[in-house]
Amino acid sequence: MRIVTSVAAMQRLALKWNQRRTPIGFVPTMGYLHAGHISLVGKARQSVGKRGVVVVSIYVNPTQFAPTEDFASYPRDLPRDEKLCRDAGVDVLFVPDDRQMYPARKSALFSTYVVEECLSRGMESASRPTHFRGVTTVVAKLFNIVRPDVAVFGAKDFQQAAVVKRMVRDLNLPVKVVVAPTVREADGLALSSRNKLLSASERAQAVALWQAIRQARQTVLASRKPIPASRLKCALKWLIETRPAARVDYIEFFNPETLQPVAEARRGAHMALAAWVGKTRLIDNARL
Amino acid sequence: MRIVTSVAAMQRLALKWNQRRTPIGFVPTMGYLHAGHISLVGKARQSVGKRGVVVVSIYVNPTQFAPTEDFASYPRDLPRDEKLCRDAGVDVLFVPDDRQMYPARKSALFSTYVVEECLSRGMESASRPTHFRGVTTVVAKLFNIVRPDVAVFGAKDFQQAAVVKRMVRDLNLPVKVVVAPTVREADGLALSSRNKLLSASERAQAVALWQAIRQARQTVLASRKPIPASRLKCALKWLIETRPAARVDYIEFFNPETLQPVAEARRGAHMALAAWVGKTRLIDNARL
Repeated sequence: MRIVTSVAAMQRLALKWNQRRTPIGFVPTMGYLHAGHISLVGKARQSVGKRGVVVVSIYVNPTQFAPTEDFASYPRDLPRDEKLCRDAGVDVLFVPDDRQMYPARKSALFSTYVVEECLSRGMESASRPTHFRGVTTVVAKLFNIVRPDVAVFGAKDFQQAAVVKRMVRDLNLPVKVVVAPTVREADGLALSSRNKLLSASERAQAVALWQAIRQARQTVLASRKPIPASRLKCALKWLIETRPAARVDYIEFFNPETLQPVAEARRGAHMALAAWVGKTRLIDNARL
Repeated sequence: MRIVTSVAAMQRLALKWNQRRTPIGFVPTMGYLHAGHISLVGKARQSVGKRGVVVVSIYVNPTQFAPTEDFASYPRDLPRDEKLCRDAGVDVLFVPDDRQMYPARKSALFSTYVVEECLSRGMESASRPTHFRGVTTVVAKLFNIVRPDVAVFGAKDFQQAAVVKRMVRDLNLPVKVVVAPTVREADGLALSSRNKLLSASERAQAVALWQAIRQARQTVLASRKPIPASRLKCALKWLIETRPAARVDYIEFFNPETLQPVAEARRGAHMALAAWVGKTRLIDNARL
């Protein structure tokens, strides 16, 4: 496995692969890898085959964090990530630093952003208004540097995957976006690098997000009529907040194509939620 | 010369050229071509050589026009443009329509924009606040479709060229941007497709923009001290507006790297201006 830290070197390598028709599979991450990320690497390998190359990037992108958020405390462990990537058969680990990604000369600061104005409204962006602008900008940059044929994103970040797919379509990026299923702990908690930040007690309570999804599924399946979304939200909020460390940020039911909220929860609708467990904000989602 | 109207076909062609290491030179235009555009085609050919390909796009991009602007009356003449491109040795003329560039399904409208937030402030954007957002978005799309090694822009649109160069750097687009000098009529008027919209009397008065540039150069050269920009602006505005059909939109003196206005006009500073001549808005610029 080759480790590349320079944007120019990564792009040269990618352009060479493009010329040789070597398919490139790409998994952009913020590091602190877990089995969810490794499943994305597997999907990337599956897409490009043996003669293709799989690139994983690790970059905790500052522009997708608000000043009040956990950029500084976001977990990092590069040696561990290196080993996991090597074991997973990754060909190139791309690990740029901030000066590589956002070079700032005094006379020419970074000033170009990619913004998606439709799917990036509501849900995550209600609490994190500049988050998706940071995501689309860094993903566009990474796509231009790594020049992948296929890029794999996790379904845990459902809205992010939808926004990235829309960006790819709108800007005519020649990249196929694959969304791979969420990987869960035995009790159902969605794998996330942020789970590391939970205390033992918080970890036990964090399963509330998944339990809320299961409860919503059961309610919808058991009911002969669609359920008013507002009533179900209240019930699920109550369910989650019975755990002392848990506070709901949002619960939403929506059309999985348009991300438009629906007034009634029924089978086929999608549910997403965010909750604070102690000082850690977790998200999850699933189809009902 | 091949004419391509489909985005998918153009991108397939470009990806094939990338794989064959065929250099691609690209000249994005809004059509109604004149000798200025043809000089850009010459630069593109010079950059990619005989074994390279030169692509010209013709697309009057709606997203860079405000609803009040001249999108509908912008001059168009495809048969004439085709002949000019053929004679200039263009390999591919890419002529997408709006449905190709901004496909709008009911459930998934176009919603992603590229925005440059620094160089695109002031001057052109003061009168045309959403103009550069439209330019950067369509140029990013065209770059992703045509995948050029070199793209050539005209110096007449000085701020546009600066914004595009910044976008290319910030988003890591692997494209070399070349800016080619403004081509002028015998009397100094900068070539522009919009000159077609001028009446004979307006055409005679339109030379005022170039005369203001020459006057500014002479004033700066003749003076032992830098000239307060505000004083020079007043004098030039008066000079231009002595023509009955001419009204100044802005005159600006600025640092050509940062586009920051300077308080004093001196040699090496850059000057740009926009003026209405009748109902047509013209721009010009030059180094003093």
